[in-house]
Amino acid sequence: MEITVMSNILEKNEEVAAEINAMLTRRGIFTVNLLGSPGCGKTSLVEQTISLLKNEFHIAIIEGDLYTSKDADRIAAYGAPVVQINTEGGCHLDAAMVKSALNQLNLNELDILIIENVGNLVCPAEFAVGEHAKVVVLSVAEGEDKPLKYPLVFRQSAAVILNKIDLLPYTDFAIDCAVRDISGLNPQAALLQVSCRTGAGVTEWLEWLKQQVQLLRK
Amino acid sequence: MEITVMSNILEKNEEVAAEINAMLTRRGIFTVNLLGSPGCGKTSLVEQTISLLKNEFHIAIIEGDLYTSKDADRIAAYGAPVVQINTEGGCHLDAAMVKSALNQLNLNELDILIIENVGNLVCPAEFAVGEHAKVVVLSVAEGEDKPLKYPLVFRQSAAVILNKIDLLPYTDFAIDCAVRDISGLNPQAALLQVSCRTGAGVTEWLEWLKQQVQLLRK
Repeated sequence: MEITVMSNILEKNEEVAAEINAMLTRRGIFTVNLLGSPGCGKTSLVEQTISLLKNEFHIAIIEGDLYTSKDADRIAAYGAPVVQINTEGGCHLDAAMVKSALNQLNLNELDILIIENVGNLVCPAEFAVGEHAKVVVLSVAEGEDKPLKYPLVFRQSAAVILNKIDLLPYTDFAIDCAVRDISGLNPQAALLQVSCRTGAGVTEWLEWLKQQVQLLRK
Repeated sequence: MEITVMSNILEKNEEVAAEINAMLTRRGIFTVNLLGSPGCGKTSLVEQTISLLKNEFHIAIIEGDLYTSKDADRIAAYGAPVVQINTEGGCHLDAAMVKSALNQLNLNELDILIIENVGNLVCPAEFAVGEHAKVVVLSVAEGEDKPLKYPLVFRQSAAVILNKIDLLPYTDFAIDCAVRDISGLNPQAALLQVSCRTGAGVTEWLEWLKQQVQLLRK
């Protein structure tokens, strides 16, 4: 019974996600579903991205949170259009929520859409929201054991951002082990070492993102 | 339809949780449901607890993870009885899983049971597992905005552990703001500043835990 209901929900979600994906592809808007634990640095990555790419690309953001508009407020300060979704307790975004949020954005001339999902390394990985690529952020403060403990999100992501590498000297994070485990789960994924605080590795992330926009428009 | 099924699941879970809770209360086993994001330091807190209390109390651990026995392996090295639950993708422990795990533990002469839940600040807060107290761990590396973004788990917890305070000098964590928000959500909660790495604040945590054992047995 539970399984049937869950499978219906996922099936319906896949339909709406496919519809969103087709629309975004037609318009040439490269769309990222940005995933990661609470506090891994997703919003900081979005801030860096807007700040450094806004003269070159039109970027819009959808912010997913259980409560508060804290993240949307942060993003709005950078001058990018942003829609906040509050799930009010819900543990992930779904395609229907994103579809409603898209109605509040002007999609004309948009190049990049970043959907920052709810901070949660588990549930959001199961629900497509129309994205072209999932990107997962892992803070080195979380420990190198996380890829094997939460494999689905690492398997599904086109890029993995190892964030907060400025904290490496103050943690026991075994970066070789993390890199080995991530590559084992997903040999195709781009693996980028970043500090949104110092700016280290941010250029490589932006290069990856620009390349995806070009590939979509080929 | 979805809501009905969800409510049935929660109701059934509450029944099993109440049954477990009654049994543990009868035996005088103080039971913690330990919650927090991936990598906030739950397992390190368990290690410190066993290491420093094992000569005084009999402690057993139930470890919840989606996959791997990494945490149970860590705990077993400290010489405490431990049962690993793998949810295989499931985002939280439920009471039925804990009931099965309890069958694998010798409950005679046990004083404290710590159930380390799946790393997730959202879903586990909705499912009681028979505990006497929820305890939530928040790493300062996650940022001070988390209590207001994930209020349920902070409201429900009898103690809040602000962990990794050794990282405070290397982050922008506004501790006053975190303390204000947590106290606002839950004025009764014990609020402890801890570093499992340096040992700072661990004594206060152990005092709190010992006090709970005494209160249960009064």
